[in-house]
Amino acid sequence: MKAIKLFERASRTYSDSSSFSKLLVVFTVSGGGLLAYADANSTNPIAPPEIKKKRVVVLGTGWAGTSFLKQLDNPSYDVQVISPRNYFAFTPLLPSVTVGTVEPRSIVEPIRNIVKKKNVDVHYWEAECFKIDSQSKKVHCRSNQNIDGKGKEEFVVDYDYLVIAMGARPNTFNTPGVVEHCNFLKEVEDAQKIRRSVIDAFEKASLPSLSDEERQKMLHFVVVGGGPTGVEFAAELHDFVKEDLVKLYPAAGKYVKITLLEAADHILTMFDKRITEFAEDKFKRDGIDVKLGSMVIKVSDKEISTKARVNGQVATMPYGMVVWSTGIGTDPVVKDFMKQVGQETRRVLATDEWLRVEGTDSIYALGDCATINQRRVMEDIDSIFKKADKDNSGKLTVKELQEVVDDICERYPQVDLYLKTKKLRNIADLLKDDSKSSVEISIEELKTALNEVDAQVKNLPATAQVAAQQGAYLAKCFNRMEEAEKNPEGPLRFRGEGRHRFRPFRYKHFGQFAPLGGEQTAAQLPGDWVSIGHSTQWLWYSVYASKLVSWRTRSLVVTDWVKRFIFGRDSSSI
Amino acid sequence: MKAIKLFERASRTYSDSSSFSKLLVVFTVSGGGLLAYADANSTNPIAPPEIKKKRVVVLGTGWAGTSFLKQLDNPSYDVQVISPRNYFAFTPLLPSVTVGTVEPRSIVEPIRNIVKKKNVDVHYWEAECFKIDSQSKKVHCRSNQNIDGKGKEEFVVDYDYLVIAMGARPNTFNTPGVVEHCNFLKEVEDAQKIRRSVIDAFEKASLPSLSDEERQKMLHFVVVGGGPTGVEFAAELHDFVKEDLVKLYPAAGKYVKITLLEAADHILTMFDKRITEFAEDKFKRDGIDVKLGSMVIKVSDKEISTKARVNGQVATMPYGMVVWSTGIGTDPVVKDFMKQVGQETRRVLATDEWLRVEGTDSIYALGDCATINQRRVMEDIDSIFKKADKDNSGKLTVKELQEVVDDICERYPQVDLYLKTKKLRNIADLLKDDSKSSVEISIEELKTALNEVDAQVKNLPATAQVAAQQGAYLAKCFNRMEEAEKNPEGPLRFRGEGRHRFRPFRYKHFGQFAPLGGEQTAAQLPGDWVSIGHSTQWLWYSVYASKLVSWRTRSLVVTDWVKRFIFGRDSSSI
Repeated sequence: MKAIKLFERASRTYSDSSSFSKLLVVFTVSGGGLLAYADANSTNPIAPPEIKKKRVVVLGTGWAGTSFLKQLDNPSYDVQVISPRNYFAFTPLLPSVTVGTVEPRSIVEPIRNIVKKKNVDVHYWEAECFKIDSQSKKVHCRSNQNIDGKGKEEFVVDYDYLVIAMGARPNTFNTPGVVEHCNFLKEVEDAQKIRRSVIDAFEKASLPSLSDEERQKMLHFVVVGGGPTGVEFAAELHDFVKEDLVKLYPAAGKYVKITLLEAADHILTMFDKRITEFAEDKFKRDGIDVKLGSMVIKVSDKEISTKARVNGQVATMPYGMVVWSTGIGTDPVVKDFMKQVGQETRRVLATDEWLRVEGTDSIYALGDCATINQRRVMEDIDSIFKKADKDNSGKLTVKELQEVVDDICERYPQVDLYLKTKKLRNIADLLKDDSKSSVEISIEELKTALNEVDAQVKNLPATAQVAAQQGAYLAKCFNRMEEAEKNPEGPLRFRGEGRHRFRPFRYKHFGQFAPLGGEQTAAQLPGDWVSIGHSTQWLWYSVYASKLVSWRTRSLVVTDWVKRFIFGRDSSSI
Repeated sequence: MKAIKLFERASRTYSDSSSFSKLLVVFTVSGGGLLAYADANSTNPIAPPEIKKKRVVVLGTGWAGTSFLKQLDNPSYDVQVISPRNYFAFTPLLPSVTVGTVEPRSIVEPIRNIVKKKNVDVHYWEAECFKIDSQSKKVHCRSNQNIDGKGKEEFVVDYDYLVIAMGARPNTFNTPGVVEHCNFLKEVEDAQKIRRSVIDAFEKASLPSLSDEERQKMLHFVVVGGGPTGVEFAAELHDFVKEDLVKLYPAAGKYVKITLLEAADHILTMFDKRITEFAEDKFKRDGIDVKLGSMVIKVSDKEISTKARVNGQVATMPYGMVVWSTGIGTDPVVKDFMKQVGQETRRVLATDEWLRVEGTDSIYALGDCATINQRRVMEDIDSIFKKADKDNSGKLTVKELQEVVDDICERYPQVDLYLKTKKLRNIADLLKDDSKSSVEISIEELKTALNEVDAQVKNLPATAQVAAQQGAYLAKCFNRMEEAEKNPEGPLRFRGEGRHRFRPFRYKHFGQFAPLGGEQTAAQLPGDWVSIGHSTQWLWYSVYASKLVSWRTRSLVVTDWVKRFIFGRDSSSI
């Protein structure tokens, strides 16, 4: 039944937009639309039509996947979205959700709502992809919930293009006991669980007939990881306790302790030193115990053990709740996929600068589950030289270099950065000076000049901002795929013929916030501009309010903030 | 440690309000304040002072318990509240929570918030009472959560007065499979679970590779019980599907079916016939399948079986979700307590008209966990006659009757009702006519006249309105306890000396709403006034908004309604 309907739609599509459909024939490899495992059940006697819309399968509804779906507006795709979460969550507000400053429903938007008004056919399946089969271009999925009498439904989805945006797992660094005893802070459910645990701890500690030690233990909250999420959670928890809970649990107040463990020498190391110092000072004033250089080596059901980096001293402390917020790890499904595409030795899935997974031709990966493997100049230096040396003289004139320098900078942004930061002054001066256009450079000279350029290459941080920009970038590529085949808009292919179809992805950093509690926020803005204090908190409010995914979430979050100002946070244990 | 603090407080109390404390000596039987099971742990070397505040223990934070706590303002009590829920929930809005018309947090208020501003010492323990020991005046409690290494904490609380307001359980009528497979709708958690299940059902039914039968089964929602809760849930679910879900799940729409099963001949039998008819008609137009006279006899994991009352025919239908909303049953803790106080043969815990549990002198029960056992006139008729016959003539003059008729009406409201509805015209006429004041009535004549009066006695419905009025009534009694000892304000004691301390509880019916979906509400107002339609919906909005427990919940619920009008209901599966 299902199969027939799909073929009907496919045929309809053919007549609707035949020009594009013809092009698709070239790309269509496997047929069959959407097929269930139980192929024998298929009662379709009609052979599948050979021409149909290009099938794009998107795995994940986080920042990258949702941003891709929002920007995609080329109706010549048939899009299927697979994710265990039927909503997009505005994750930067998760720390606020842990204590009820913002309600969970205010930061989520059903993915069906996001895609329903589009001119593109988008189907969503609430399921988890448990295997990517890049050989036969299929993804194997398992439904989120049990179907009565059958267990979880398994099904297979074919793709022409696959967009992997599955995000990452929390990284436990294989520390024993972390998975069993710690709370994470990556999903809405995590935040709800933490909220419930905090209230539970206060209720427990208020029971009669407990010893002081027991109360102290119950109300000892430990945060592992001094990154923005861990710091913001510690700050939010501190505010919740001081502003709301001590009023309702006056006897429990004196037992509360918040400890922040950070393995490095400072918290918020990705921020400017001024911000780090301000944050550490503020936490000290607030009574949050920041233990720097302190690595967690074990978590049991009652205690957490740390080792000091300086002297290797091991300390153990009882805790009531631990929130683990350190780095990201790779999903097992992605790990398995990496083996298929020859990336088994890598730690993280690598893509090229166009977000295409290395070793594949139709699979893209973006967001936290992948990193861009920026091509090194020195690997391609011979090809670059050869391509630039149009007269095959074995020497590059400055004029010849001038002609390709824009393409080089676009293809290898590290060169651009080097030129802009004046580190390649001799070459830059040469290129600017028209009178020097006949000066010749040998390949050895070029190699020497560019020798340290590749050291500039840095991985992008695993942030929502990067993921969202990647999703939008990829959608724009997909929107103009047909167009770009005819008129490539990217830089010269130094190791091949012609030009790249698209310009490579470039990240634009719009700054980052670190809310520190007590209406204090620090922000690192573009151009190393640092802003700290009460006014930054208002900037934070306004930026986050404007970035929320829909008018619904925007108004709900603002309403939540107003509610919090007027009534405080709710402490009902639901 | 704990014990010492309690005694300190008790001593302080003594000096603060010694006049009342002296009175307490008379009542205080057992000492020891709040004692843990592990008495051996007690390190208190000081003997407990003999005079302290009267300890009131309240079990439950529902309508009755919360209403009692809100109204109690006599500082001479030491109040301890024990409930597994640390919040009060505005239960009439639970059906709205099941589909997200109102958010769960908008209808709850932490009990600590409700009591914190009072001049009365109120302590709350998040625990469940698992045994009432009326002999030694103790309640045995178990904490809601595990205390590490100890399991659930158990402790004992002593009381001078016990207020049982534990509510009731859903009544399954011992139907097999109900507990295992049905959803109930009594707690906030139930509503949240139903909301999640509805979305899950739509996501499941949207998966590829399912048969039509499977989809139909998944989207078949069955509501058992045609009372106000069941009807309102069916209506809310219908609105959610039609207004929100079919837009997001266009393919699933045609499979949805809502069935309402009612064992009686009509739904909403407690309402006026016009309302019942309107509701049945509206549901028919909406496509809700109302099956009347249909008793559920079994629920399996896949199917629900019913038996028609008319012909005994058994029918079985597959379902996706069942919500069970029929009547109330007694909690096992209350059952056990009933045995202790000689009520083992009763179905429901019985109290007298002052809400005091029959067979006890310091235990009160109110709300859904108890019923008032209204004393019958005919049982007391001899005592009444004797007390009224002041001159012991063996005959009552009309004058003598006139003197006690107010007390009779107050003590036996069925007589009042009878007089008001003109059914006792001959006696009423006698009483009004001053010229007849010397007419004499024999006891036989009085018995004949009052013969059918007791048939007027009806149990109060198990509604929030009754529970709230009972809580407020009892609090007022507690507030004036001392005063009323000296100047009793109740009716004459016909079977004893003097007057009752308080007037007995009287329920005032302020009407009841039945929201029917599609902005249609029916209301039965006092004086059998019936109102149906769109304007009643607005009346419903305004009454409910005004009745919510705090300004916080009031504004949150109104905000939720506005949100729903603007953005619809959220369908994220969180």
